[in-house]
Amino acid sequence: MYKYLNKVNSPEDIKTMSTEEIDLLAKDIRKFLVKSVSKTGGHLASNLGIVELTLALHKVFDSPKDKIVWDVGHQSYVHKIVTGRKNDFSSLRQLNGLSGFPKESESPHDIFDTGHSSTSISVATGIACGRDIKNEDYSVIAVIGDGSITGGLALEALNHLGYINKNVIIILNDNEMSIDKNVGGMSRHLSSIIRNSTINKMKDEMEKILNVTPAGNIISKTANKVKDSIISNFTPQNCEFFDSLGIKYYGPIDGHNTQEIIDMLKKARTKDGPVLLHVITKKGKGYKYAEEQPDKYHGVSKFDIKTGVKPSGKKSISSAVGQKLTDMASKDDKIVAITAAMPSGTGLNIFEKKYPDRYYDVGIAEQHATTLSAGLAKNGMKPYFAVYSSFLQRAYDQLIHDVCITKKAVTFLIDRAGIVGNDGETHHGIFDLSYLNPVPNIVVMAPKDTSELELMMDLSLEINQPVAIRYPRGNSYYLEKGKYDKINLGEYEIIDEGKDIAVLAIGNMVKHAIEAKEILLKDSINPTIVNSRFLKPIDEELLHRILKSHKKLVTIEDNVIAGGFGSVINKFILDNNYNVDIINIGIDGQFVQHGNADELYKILGLSPESIAAKIKNFKL
Amino acid sequence: MYKYLNKVNSPEDIKTMSTEEIDLLAKDIRKFLVKSVSKTGGHLASNLGIVELTLALHKVFDSPKDKIVWDVGHQSYVHKIVTGRKNDFSSLRQLNGLSGFPKESESPHDIFDTGHSSTSISVATGIACGRDIKNEDYSVIAVIGDGSITGGLALEALNHLGYINKNVIIILNDNEMSIDKNVGGMSRHLSSIIRNSTINKMKDEMEKILNVTPAGNIISKTANKVKDSIISNFTPQNCEFFDSLGIKYYGPIDGHNTQEIIDMLKKARTKDGPVLLHVITKKGKGYKYAEEQPDKYHGVSKFDIKTGVKPSGKKSISSAVGQKLTDMASKDDKIVAITAAMPSGTGLNIFEKKYPDRYYDVGIAEQHATTLSAGLAKNGMKPYFAVYSSFLQRAYDQLIHDVCITKKAVTFLIDRAGIVGNDGETHHGIFDLSYLNPVPNIVVMAPKDTSELELMMDLSLEINQPVAIRYPRGNSYYLEKGKYDKINLGEYEIIDEGKDIAVLAIGNMVKHAIEAKEILLKDSINPTIVNSRFLKPIDEELLHRILKSHKKLVTIEDNVIAGGFGSVINKFILDNNYNVDIINIGIDGQFVQHGNADELYKILGLSPESIAAKIKNFKL
Repeated sequence: MYKYLNKVNSPEDIKTMSTEEIDLLAKDIRKFLVKSVSKTGGHLASNLGIVELTLALHKVFDSPKDKIVWDVGHQSYVHKIVTGRKNDFSSLRQLNGLSGFPKESESPHDIFDTGHSSTSISVATGIACGRDIKNEDYSVIAVIGDGSITGGLALEALNHLGYINKNVIIILNDNEMSIDKNVGGMSRHLSSIIRNSTINKMKDEMEKILNVTPAGNIISKTANKVKDSIISNFTPQNCEFFDSLGIKYYGPIDGHNTQEIIDMLKKARTKDGPVLLHVITKKGKGYKYAEEQPDKYHGVSKFDIKTGVKPSGKKSISSAVGQKLTDMASKDDKIVAITAAMPSGTGLNIFEKKYPDRYYDVGIAEQHATTLSAGLAKNGMKPYFAVYSSFLQRAYDQLIHDVCITKKAVTFLIDRAGIVGNDGETHHGIFDLSYLNPVPNIVVMAPKDTSELELMMDLSLEINQPVAIRYPRGNSYYLEKGKYDKINLGEYEIIDEGKDIAVLAIGNMVKHAIEAKEILLKDSINPTIVNSRFLKPIDEELLHRILKSHKKLVTIEDNVIAGGFGSVINKFILDNNYNVDIINIGIDGQFVQHGNADELYKILGLSPESIAAKIKNFKL
Repeated sequence: MYKYLNKVNSPEDIKTMSTEEIDLLAKDIRKFLVKSVSKTGGHLASNLGIVELTLALHKVFDSPKDKIVWDVGHQSYVHKIVTGRKNDFSSLRQLNGLSGFPKESESPHDIFDTGHSSTSISVATGIACGRDIKNEDYSVIAVIGDGSITGGLALEALNHLGYINKNVIIILNDNEMSIDKNVGGMSRHLSSIIRNSTINKMKDEMEKILNVTPAGNIISKTANKVKDSIISNFTPQNCEFFDSLGIKYYGPIDGHNTQEIIDMLKKARTKDGPVLLHVITKKGKGYKYAEEQPDKYHGVSKFDIKTGVKPSGKKSISSAVGQKLTDMASKDDKIVAITAAMPSGTGLNIFEKKYPDRYYDVGIAEQHATTLSAGLAKNGMKPYFAVYSSFLQRAYDQLIHDVCITKKAVTFLIDRAGIVGNDGETHHGIFDLSYLNPVPNIVVMAPKDTSELELMMDLSLEINQPVAIRYPRGNSYYLEKGKYDKINLGEYEIIDEGKDIAVLAIGNMVKHAIEAKEILLKDSINPTIVNSRFLKPIDEELLHRILKSHKKLVTIEDNVIAGGFGSVINKFILDNNYNVDIINIGIDGQFVQHGNADELYKILGLSPESIAAKIKNFKL
């Protein structure tokens, strides 16, 4: 079935292939990718776009002696396939299976773990500096997308690398997309280079001749020669942005013309100082549904190959947030929405459609998104920045320095808080409660379900100060228990009165606590369940009430225990000299692997069953 | 004494002045600045460099209707002087006195609080977006230095602003310095523009004519006219970097030629879309010692105006660190040192002199510094990134994602941890224990004094994993109590055995605990003092010993209490069911104002006296 792919068990096997064979291999790999990802889910469009580029890299360079550093890393599937892991793809992103990102622990060909964007140039520069200190001789290559390269970290790295002039090859994989359509001055600049490039125009002319000339005749041969000569005599072009920083620019290069890429990589390998190859690729290349809607096929669940149909999902929490914010904005013309390159992921695409003038997609730039929000708030706007929990880590100083010190009424809608599932270590949002807790002036809350999330958004508008609302990845859900009135600042809710033992759960974990209680009731253990809506401020009155009537307490959070919700309750107990026993349930001092969220909850002791078991054990 | 300054009580008073009068005012202000800062200490060189620029801004624009946003803000003294605060300068940076940075609470002319670099373009863009939504009409101006503009946040903002094409005026105040000499590709690019600028060359030619021609004669008049015409007909120049992002560049402009700046500002005000004025200034201008050594006169303590002599300081902790690292590097050629534009502040200038090839100043780029360090570690180097605590907030995601997930042996030398004094809210390093505690795989320690700091640096080299060592701003100090042997991972030290009550102090606070004990002994209270060297891992064995023999515990840290050292001990007590009383001493849910560190310790309850009082109260 896979005639050429079957021959490839390591990069060595590519080195002996002709360009034609590599192109046939590319076809095999595209088939393999579509088939495999249609069964497991995963990142599709970006990998389809980078097949020829990846194969050319392994043809020209000697991995792992030469170091290929993948930025973000969701586009490393082809690299994984040709570095001995094709047979593991049925386990992709599953528990104990192949990671969807590069992992040093998986293969010596994976130079650096990643998941977040914009790190590759810094890593490559560090490796190159080490190489030169040790007088070693090999190439260091960073492969980075046109979205990632506009992240502040990558821009800082370009500024430094251009200055210290180390031999690093940057491959700019330009598909004019982040996950959604790319934005930003640099993106526009790159597009204009592609449009105006002399080499592209010359190549186009030759292509025109070739198209109307029978292959093999003298005109065709000449046109082919000229075309090859254009490519092989290629010299640095003018790309003001990179040139000005001291990085030699070569491009644009057709990212689906294997020979052209190979020639350019060979050229780049011989250059002194940092060079950037601008490679134009088509996201989703070779699978028509993905070519047509690359954003929809960026990260996918299982789908039908023939029809491209994915199981129609239920309404996500993110889209509920997008809808609610849009509704709020219809009543309050000061509301503005901000995203850092995640309009569909955060649900803000709904807002954008209705209020494009009050919507800002700043690109992959969480720092700027945060400080921009602070500026908007300074001018009387009411900014809502929707951002994934693990990406907000990028804007920690801006949150402290520009929002909280200055008390600006910015609301952080923290999506993907807690366990996110298959993206794994880099993407779980398990630190936000801990890193927000020490910051003064910010209200931090987490809803028990989607209705309460909407009520908390109402509250955020009312209180006019920095706010963070964290909520998990997944489908909207609605609990039957509890009230759905207006929420007051710092007010907890007793969901189910029991006795002896009180379970204080926050956010998503309220649901697990309620389900755990169902289990415990069978053993005649009847805990009180408290919906602890606020990390801060806490509901001191209710806590006193609970602590006076219960001898045992349990806190539950889908966050690391250190410095999280449990630590707040621990302190309250000790400060008020209550003589009670307490256990803190949460994530204990570890990064969390990839896998299905429910499986991970079990492993972490956060599933309703494991929570029930812990409580039962504690009760005895 | 200050003939012109005396006339200025608000920006209105500048508007009626002629350029000649403004130049005389500038002279007054320089005198005032040198005299005032020589008495109070503060930021000098940057303010001397920006006098004409500030006055021109207030001449042309109507503050606060027009919004002037100062980046970093240590260069806002002239702005403060002319916006009604000149009489407050004797209280500069002192408790309850004038802040050394813009403060919205001080004046409506201070548009946004700041202290950290690179925020102004984002803030200005946010204000401009709000302005346009509300259909208001005024100018928004960001004043940013050539160091700050290379920070990732500012680069993200340029990319966004160029794309959305809002009317924002960026003043690039280029003095070719951060605090130390500037580095980076952009810096080199800007220098080459200055060197090669046609306008500069033409102006120079006219100056040559003017220098050899009696004023008033026909040649001189003509040359003057030509010079004026060059300036007033000035059109956008080619500056590849900004142009490529969609930001119109004008410059270079002589930052000490008031008329030239005024003309250019008037021009900029009428332009559509974002423009950048490249203004060349001389740091320290007008005070010869500051001109000669602008880095030494960036931030100063009191000094003698005539001689420029500052009281010779004792050896700082930072320079002890720089020396120790240099000594270590002489024995281990894998050690490399990284700074983000703070070579002298962190003491790494000592390292640079001896090992320039193993030293990296990356510019204002904490994110890149961190991920670069991870790349260096990947290649077998042993990187030490010396960084101020509050600036490390900028690299939180990189610390988690690139160092700790991947377990790279990077050591963070966290300088300025705890209370830093006069720089105030934005600069106190009071969050690091809390934000590091939840991160897996990193060892976090804090030494009781400078000797122990050196021993901890030895340990960091030994354990080959991510490490953070935090230590305060100030002079080296050495405690007499305790041992100075090799430190083992996670080992605490009982400094002074007492009874009943145990005081667990971390880092700098061990000194305060020892001094508090001296006071308490007079009341026959004899606490055990524990040097709790590690935030993590903790010394479980010693803690069990202490908890079995003491009924009362006190934790002390110069960090916020939430999620800090106290929270770790609280959890240990509750997890192990010890029935003891505990109080956590630290900073309680607030940002900390500026002032002398000892005064602040008193206010915060962290001085030895206040600690003693709290313990006495607790003992009763």
